[in-house]
Amino acid sequence: MSLLTILEDIKPELSALEEELQQWVKSPSPLLSAASSHLLNAGGKRLRPALAILCARPFAYQRGPAVRLGAALELVHMATLVHDDVVDCSILRRGQPTVKAVWGDQVSLHAGDHIFARALMCIATIENPRVASVLAEVSVKMSQGEITQILTTYDPDQSVRDYFKRIRYKTALLLSASCELGATVGRASDRAVQALSRYGYFLGMAFQITDDVLDIVADASQLGKPTGSDLQQGIFTLPVILALRRDSGGQRLRELLAQVSESEILSESLEMVRASGAVEDSLETAQNYVAKAKACLHVLPPCEHVNVLGEIADFVGNRDF
Amino acid sequence: MSLLTILEDIKPELSALEEELQQWVKSPSPLLSAASSHLLNAGGKRLRPALAILCARPFAYQRGPAVRLGAALELVHMATLVHDDVVDCSILRRGQPTVKAVWGDQVSLHAGDHIFARALMCIATIENPRVASVLAEVSVKMSQGEITQILTTYDPDQSVRDYFKRIRYKTALLLSASCELGATVGRASDRAVQALSRYGYFLGMAFQITDDVLDIVADASQLGKPTGSDLQQGIFTLPVILALRRDSGGQRLRELLAQVSESEILSESLEMVRASGAVEDSLETAQNYVAKAKACLHVLPPCEHVNVLGEIADFVGNRDF
Repeated sequence: MSLLTILEDIKPELSALEEELQQWVKSPSPLLSAASSHLLNAGGKRLRPALAILCARPFAYQRGPAVRLGAALELVHMATLVHDDVVDCSILRRGQPTVKAVWGDQVSLHAGDHIFARALMCIATIENPRVASVLAEVSVKMSQGEITQILTTYDPDQSVRDYFKRIRYKTALLLSASCELGATVGRASDRAVQALSRYGYFLGMAFQITDDVLDIVADASQLGKPTGSDLQQGIFTLPVILALRRDSGGQRLRELLAQVSESEILSESLEMVRASGAVEDSLETAQNYVAKAKACLHVLPPCEHVNVLGEIADFVGNRDF
Repeated sequence: MSLLTILEDIKPELSALEEELQQWVKSPSPLLSAASSHLLNAGGKRLRPALAILCARPFAYQRGPAVRLGAALELVHMATLVHDDVVDCSILRRGQPTVKAVWGDQVSLHAGDHIFARALMCIATIENPRVASVLAEVSVKMSQGEITQILTTYDPDQSVRDYFKRIRYKTALLLSASCELGATVGRASDRAVQALSRYGYFLGMAFQITDDVLDIVADASQLGKPTGSDLQQGIFTLPVILALRRDSGGQRLRELLAQVSESEILSESLEMVRASGAVEDSLETAQNYVAKAKACLHVLPPCEHVNVLGEIADFVGNRDF
């Protein structure tokens, strides 16, 4: 099932979200407006807002606050993407040139800061004080995750554990916060908030692993950016780390990875990782996280919205974009 | 009078502030900790926290919240400085190598994000909701000011009005917010909050003008960075804009400024600006803002702390570092 079909139920909310987001990133400075809305206009799955809205719905749901929270989450996420593209020198994202590619480092840096400051404005309009403190803490950890990623660049000896910690900080905590805060804004019980926070965390781990697998196996057209973008920059993800640990080929792959920034070597490295069986093992790990995520939903009152959360988990485990 | 002497009265608060700041920028990642505390350890005037504390003191003063607010303000300020040094490719600040110079663009970008996220954490612990909304709005406008600065780089036709708008966004609004929020946290009357907000704004304008004059006239040892750093990057400030408008020399200066990034041309340009009388005119403008700032203090109940605010205004008008 496509994500759009799964999210059919909250389509009106997602339309309202788009309008809100457009308002938030506007600036009296035309350049800042253009740079800040560029990524927004390139589309995206809006997974974080969707999770927040879906986690609020089974409880004392009010559309306004849930959509507002969704906007804050997407703004925080977009601010990090704009900065990440500067750090990673990325030229394409979501099939469009990045802010960095169009306007360069200086404008991108300020556009990212602007979007984050807009997130802060948005958060300040949400009455629940948990929102600010949770998102602040997650933002701190996301920076920590990014720094760890820089430190482990081109390191063939990093462990699977290092990788899990990194993606937890980089990705899973914000998805966890999206679910936790959605439930909080919906005034769910502490037990439900905790269950949804854990659901979001496991979902986030699965999401990042499938993202990392797609970097190795998907077409550029599916990805909206070149295949192996991460690998080429020396970011070694789960399939690469697992392939390095194979008896056959591990040593050869290690040699290749030292020069993986060259495109011929990149192709050969991608081939080796694909042939090693490490992709299948990674997807199995992702499936384990999907199962854990779905198990968290059992404590919630069964309802249509909780079913949708289960479908999202399945989608994340099987997605091809 | 030195700033340290003026601030003698709130020395215990400023010591408590330093300890708080050290706590906030710490990270379990040693690299992120080092990069984030680097600028903090290089010192600085702590003008924004000092203003916040002094504006809280005449009212229902409580040290804890005032110092916490001061920490939030300094963290926001430091986050922008770390990013500005990336954008401006600055090597020295406060006499020390910048974060960018020591760790490069990637780490600096994340260190700036980390410090801003820490500011958010700090703000989330302050119970007054005005703090988050005012600082969010100021942060948005600071990004806007920075973008305007990029857009006006090397533009000899920018007006004095353009300049004033730029420094209002870049600098004056955060100083205004420091005073306004200090008074707010001190539970001052609306009238006093407004007067102090205006005081901070005028002070901020004077502060940035003297800063810009110092870039032209001060020694590298006073500045903690090379003389003419701004000018060399094509950032034309009040003394330069005024010098360009002189009948004698304006045309020659305009020609020089097109190539001011070369160090010989920089020296000659600095000489021309200094000889034009534009420095004196700029300082007079700064003094006008100082007078306006001090006039705002008249509506406040006369007390020792308000006197200190007057002394700070005089210091800002006459400072040589």
